[in-house]
This record gives sequence, C-alpha cells and structure tokens, in this order.
Amino acid sequence: MLSPAPVPQAKPFLAAAGQFAGGQDTPRAYLERCLETLAAWEPKIGAFVCTNIEGSRAAADASSMRWRDNKPVSAIDGMPIGIKDIIETADMPTGMGSPLFDGWSSGRDAAAVAALREAGAVILGKTVTTEFAATEPRGTRNPWDPGRTPGGSSSGSAAAVAAGLVSAALGTQVMGSIVRPASYCGCVGFKPSVGGINRGGSHDELSQSCMGVLAATLEDAWQVASEIAARAGGDPGYQGLVGPLRMPPPARPQRLVFLETAGWQVASAEAKKAIQKSLALLSRNGIDILTRQSDQLVGAVEEAIADARALSIRINTWESRWPLNTYRNRDAGKLSRAMLARLAQAEAMSLDDYRADLDERIRVRALYESLAAQCDACVTLAAPAAAPVGLSSTGDPVFAVPFSLLGVPAISLPLLREQGLPLGLQVTGFQGKDATTSAIAGWVEKHCNE
Amino acid sequence: MLSPAPVPQAKPFLAAAGQFAGGQDTPRAYLERCLETLAAWEPKIGAFVCTNIEGSRAAADASSMRWRDNKPVSAIDGMPIGIKDIIETADMPTGMGSPLFDGWSSGRDAAAVAALREAGAVILGKTVTTEFAATEPRGTRNPWDPGRTPGGSSSGSAAAVAAGLVSAALGTQVMGSIVRPASYCGCVGFKPSVGGINRGGSHDELSQSCMGVLAATLEDAWQVASEIAARAGGDPGYQGLVGPLRMPPPARPQRLVFLETAGWQVASAEAKKAIQKSLALLSRNGIDILTRQSDQLVGAVEEAIADARALSIRINTWESRWPLNTYRNRDAGKLSRAMLARLAQAEAMSLDDYRADLDERIRVRALYESLAAQCDACVTLAAPAAAPVGLSSTGDPVFAVPFSLLGVPAISLPLLREQGLPLGLQVTGFQGKDATTSAIAGWVEKHCNE
Repeated sequence: MLSPAPVPQAKPFLAAAGQFAGGQDTPRAYLERCLETLAAWEPKIGAFVCTNIEGSRAAADASSMRWRDNKPVSAIDGMPIGIKDIIETADMPTGMGSPLFDGWSSGRDAAAVAALREAGAVILGKTVTTEFAATEPRGTRNPWDPGRTPGGSSSGSAAAVAAGLVSAALGTQVMGSIVRPASYCGCVGFKPSVGGINRGGSHDELSQSCMGVLAATLEDAWQVASEIAARAGGDPGYQGLVGPLRMPPPARPQRLVFLETAGWQVASAEAKKAIQKSLALLSRNGIDILTRQSDQLVGAVEEAIADARALSIRINTWESRWPLNTYRNRDAGKLSRAMLARLAQAEAMSLDDYRADLDERIRVRALYESLAAQCDACVTLAAPAAAPVGLSSTGDPVFAVPFSLLGVPAISLPLLREQGLPLGLQVTGFQGKDATTSAIAGWVEKHCNE
Repeated sequence: MLSPAPVPQAKPFLAAAGQFAGGQDTPRAYLERCLETLAAWEPKIGAFVCTNIEGSRAAADASSMRWRDNKPVSAIDGMPIGIKDIIETADMPTGMGSPLFDGWSSGRDAAAVAALREAGAVILGKTVTTEFAATEPRGTRNPWDPGRTPGGSSSGSAAAVAAGLVSAALGTQVMGSIVRPASYCGCVGFKPSVGGINRGGSHDELSQSCMGVLAATLEDAWQVASEIAARAGGDPGYQGLVGPLRMPPPARPQRLVFLETAGWQVASAEAKKAIQKSLALLSRNGIDILTRQSDQLVGAVEEAIADARALSIRINTWESRWPLNTYRNRDAGKLSRAMLARLAQAEAMSLDDYRADLDERIRVRALYESLAAQCDACVTLAAPAAAPVGLSSTGDPVFAVPFSLLGVPAISLPLLREQGLPLGLQVTGFQGKDATTSAIAGWVEKHCNE
C-alpha cells in the first residue's frame, strides 16, 4: 500500500526561535530540517534555481553560536530564506528566469539580501521566477498538487515556503506576483506599500513594483520585512516600511470594506461562498462591513479599480520598453513571445500615452485613499479560485492587481479552501499604514479561523 | 617659436547638421573631425575611459546614408556623444571609476543609451567619472588648463565636450556633478527636473540624482535630453522631461530671482563681479530682479537652502549604504577612503534619521516652489570661481547642490570669466518646467552675452 502523499507544511520561524535561546534547538538543526524537506520536496516542485548549502550551513553555524552566546543580531537570526531569482546575490547567480541571464552573476548582494545577512539570516538559495518576473512560467509545481501552477511570478518563493523548504522567501509584485502565489500555495504573502523595501539590486524596476515577503506566518512575514527596512530602508526617496520591528498585536478593526474588484465576475462559486462565510464571521464579531451595495464611495472605488489590470499593463509595458529593447538587440531568440509582444506594444506607445496613464493612476489612488476616512482596511479574495490546473500559466492576478496599482499594503492569509486546496483571504490597507494593516490582518486571521 | 596652446572649442551639432541634408557635410566627416580633435586632446586631458571608434564610424556611416536619403531618424542623427562611465553600454565596459568594476560589462545599453542609438546618435566612448560618481577624481584634466580639475563627477563628459571631442555627453548630478564641471570647462550643462530622464542602467540610484546633458550649446543639450525622453521616458513613475523635441525659442522673463545661496560666502570677488554685471545687464533689459534683500520670500528660500549641502550629504549617505556595504564585503581595499568613510557614516544612521531628512527636503522643496508665483526662474553662479588648481579634488559644488536637493531644472551657461577661465551663469527653474527654464536660459544667454 502506498503511503499517502505528504501534506505541504510551512515552517514558522519566530515561534521555533524561542527554543534557540534555551538551547533545545539551534539554527543549524533548524536548517537541517529544512534541508531534509528540500531533499524530499524539491524533486517534486522545482522551487529552486540553485542553492548554496555549504554557505547556508556555515551561516547557520555562526547563528547557532550567537544564539548560544545569547547574542542573536536580530529576531530572524538563523532564519532560512529563499531569494527570488531576479534579486542579486553575491554567492549565487541571478538568472531572472531568462536564458539571457543564465548563470549571470553580479557579484554583489541586493540591498535586501545584504540587510538579511546583516540580520543573521541564512540565504539558502535562489527561487524560481517567471521570465523577468512577468508571465512566462519556469516549471515550478504547486506542492498541493504538482499538476497545478504555484502561481507567479514569485513561483519558487511561494512553493518553497508553503512546503517548508525555507521559512520565508523574498518576492516582488507588480501585478499579483506575491499575493497570487501565496494564495495558491497556502502561505502568507505580504506586499508592503510601494517603496517600502529597498529594491536596489532587484531587477523589477517598474514604478508600481514592490518587494515583499512570503512566509509561514504573518508575524514571520512582518519581521522579515521590518528587519530589512531597518537596515536597507525603502526605495530611495521613500519612507520605507513604517512600523515596529516586531509585528504589532492583532487589532480589532471598527469597520472594513469588502471590495469585490473585477475579480468577482470570474471567482468560483465556492470561492465566493468561502469569503462570504468569512465576512459573516466578521459581522458576527461586530465588525461593520461596507460594500458597493451599501456605500456610494465604495461603489466609486470599485468602478475606479475595475480597469486596474489594463491600466497596470499599459504602465508596466511602457516601463518595460527598456531593458527589453536592449535584450532583443542582444538575442531576440532568448526572449519569450510574450516579452517580444510586450516590447512591440511598448514601442507603439508614446510618452504622452504613459503620462495619461500615470495621471489616471494618481486619480484612482486618491479615490482609494479617501476610503481611509471610512474604514480601517479592506478585505477581498486573493484569487478567483484555487490554483488552476496546468503549468503553462501562473493564473489570474485579477484580485491582486488593484492593490499593486494602488501601491497599498496587501496581505494574503491562507484561511480559505477551494476544491480542498488553499485560497487566500486578502487584507489591504492604505499607503504607509503597513503596521495597521498587519495588525488588522492578525485580528482577521484569528477571527476567521474559528 | 612654440605655437600657442590651442583653445578648447566645443562642437555644436544642430547648427552643423544643417549641412547634412544638402550634402555639404556628413555625419561621418563630422565624426572624423571629432576623432582628429580626440587624437590631439585626449593625451592632454584624459577624458575617456575607452572608445569604440570602429563602431562609431559604422554608426556615422549609417547616419550619413540616412541623411543622404533625407531620412534622418531624429535631429541628433549622427551626433557624436560620450557616455559617463557609470551608465551601461552594450559595446563597452562600465567601470564606474572603481577598480571593483574595472572592465565590467553588463552586456546591455542603459535606457538613455538605447534611446540615443534609436535616435541615430553615435556613441563614441565612455567618459571618466569619479569613483561611483562621488568625490574621488580619476585624473581627467581641464582643457583650459591641464593643471586644474575639470570638475566632477561628470569629469570626462565636460572636458570632452568643451574641447570638442564629442558634441555632447551624458552626465549625472546628485550634488553638483553636471553644473560644476560644465562651469569649469566652459560648456553648457543641463540637469533636468529630477526623474526627467530614465536612469535605467545608470548606476546612480540616489533619490535626488538626475541624468542630464553636457553640450556645446543649449539647443544641443535640450535636443539630446528631449530625444532620449521621447524614447525612454523619465524614471519609472515620473512624467519625464516635459517639452517639445526642439528647444523652445528664447523667452523673455518678467521677473527673475537672484539667489546668493551658501556659495556667496565663498565666491571670489571676480566671480561676484561677473554675475553682478550680468544682473545689471538683465536689469537694463527691463527684467525685474528680486533678491534676499528686496523680498522676504526670497530670504526665506535662501535660509532654507543654506543647509542644502549637509542635508544632501546625509540623504545621499543613507542611500549609499547599499551598494557600498556589498562592495566593501567584496574587496574593501578597492574602495577609496572617502567611500569607506561614507559607508561608516551610513551605518551610523538610522532609517528614522533618513526620514527626518526626507521630510526636511519636502519642506524646502515646497518653499522653493512657492517662488514660482513670484518669478519665472532664478539665476546665480554655477561655481564660486573658475576651476581650482590641482587634480586631487573636483571643486566645490556649493552653487549647484541646492538645485539638486530641490530637484529642479538647472542650466549652467558658459557666459562668465574668472581668472580668464570659464565660469558658468546658472539658471534654475521649477519642477517639471524644464522647457520654460530652457527658454529663459536662452534669453538670458542672448542678453548677457552682449
């Protein structure tokens, strides 16, 4: 008789690290458990492009000594972390999911990676990304069902975290690249306010792109983000992630807005039912929930974000003109058809077209921000359904893209189920209010998990 | 008898290109004149890190054919251009003035370089930059006096343009790196509004850094900037340089503000006299000129920008924490003492310190912008005096740094003389008003040159 397939299980870190100080556990032992999981799962899911196991062991040993001496350099000292492969690492190549960059090494760490190393984290490897963090998948499989996509573009980060190969991983999101794979793989995905984490050395130079974290728990995700921000800040010229190092305690919201988004039209009946059940739980807990039906401003926001996908695509397309043009010049045969098509679209746009799109984004952002006077945060689905079958697409970002356009914090919580598979409940906040959003997400998590 | 030392002479392009259409001249012949000048001057001034002469000849030949066929792709088709060596080029290494990047090649063109090639420009070579576009000079000499600095950090760009080795060159400015060398070398320096030209692939990722142009004439500088912006836009999320492709005609200002800046205290008597003479000429032409003595708001702005240097240094220092930390990890011996000291200062700062500095910058910017209701533009010196003797420092950026902090367009016009050497008159405008600022600079140039 075959043993049943193992269930993917993420590895919380902060909770486990409580054992490090007392010596019952060590970062090295923790890492070895990750490596065992890696050996078991990696052949099935293909989450990593490459790993640095010897380097990780050395880093974990150094961390173990610090914990033994009661001198951890941060709360994430010893945490095994995966790095999306568009983000530079000094000890491993950065392939960007493109044959053009196969084996390419910058010889330096990205700002976030340098900060993680300063904080004592253990950089285990580079996680699979779609081509240039866009749409072309690179073979990673969903740990819940290897016949399904893990989502993208942070495909390997989500799969690796969900199956416990690492405790957390860096991702980036310009459309739905953190929230969607977090939803599909059943881990927490945290996309901060735009500019919240320094993107230096991360090759996603689009104006609404944001670096974020996939992790086993919300507390872990927050801690990774805050430890990076404390050392590397946000993007140049931005305040950087605002909030304490440790996640603030769960905070009861007074009022939430439920946003259908354009995703409602394509969400499965089961997914709709799942979020409606959560909303009912929140209501039962005395939370006032505004909807497009009950509130005019919410209706106006829904209308303004209905076009988020098309608007985001246009903005991203213009901003991708470079470097795609120079990559096409180098070797067009190494770009996917999707990338070549995007470049052709970019070349058909003018700077004036782009300016009009930026103006529209400013308008939509201002309208959404006006909701802040009415509510503490918004909730919606993180995806229309569970991960779709097949590896040729990373799925539909429709529920994530409005919040990428808006540049606001967005958190996918692995609270829902669809077809017996993970589905995220998404909590979104307002620009710069990442700490509040996390605290509310913490409360929602607690009260929708009953 | 020795022949007198040749006088550096810049090579205007737009004026010359009038001859291309009729066939009296060709881009290839124009390039050959640049190459002759290069052969004569380069050994004396050391403006280039490397050149691609064969590639340039091929590009100039292709351009010559387009002009012959009456099909130039832009007004700068065939223009020989130098690229500051922190800006990536597919055909030449990008050394960043650092032994850490000696011979390093990204294999791709920066956004601005790709745009220039699309516009038919001839990319002749990489011009010398100080170490990482900061303070450590790399040996370029001033063409007016090889015992003096050309200024920095766009040292080679200014020297090469002033002596006619190329018609124009790309530079970048975060403190005074375009305006100061333009002043010292006697060419036009144009630093657009922050974000005006796409910095993709340019390694100056600081929030008040801006790409700009050094050129023989104001019209040439504008055209280069506008042709780039039309094809590559500004920094992601920014409007990009706003204005027509061809520089607007000179426009008479109604009222100008004369800003002393903190530079007035260190300006030479001769420099002060020179700008005062210009102000007198403007007055005589009926221009109303406000000063700190005559206007309270101007006084408040003077006070707010008095600390521009210290504030800019703090902002730049925090933002330089990365990548300097990863470079130090790689090989500290290949960083200058100045860079190591900057990194140590960055590591002594906190994100909160930086946020306070950003807030102060926002305050100063808003105050300066309120001047826009009172005047059309501001004028001041571009440097306290002519280029100082010696090559160990690139001189004092005191007159340029306020406008870097403010993120506003700044133009250095080679109108003044000090010790018989070039000195710039600086015209500055308001954010996004680059076209207006250029048009006023054009008028000032005409009326202060009498």
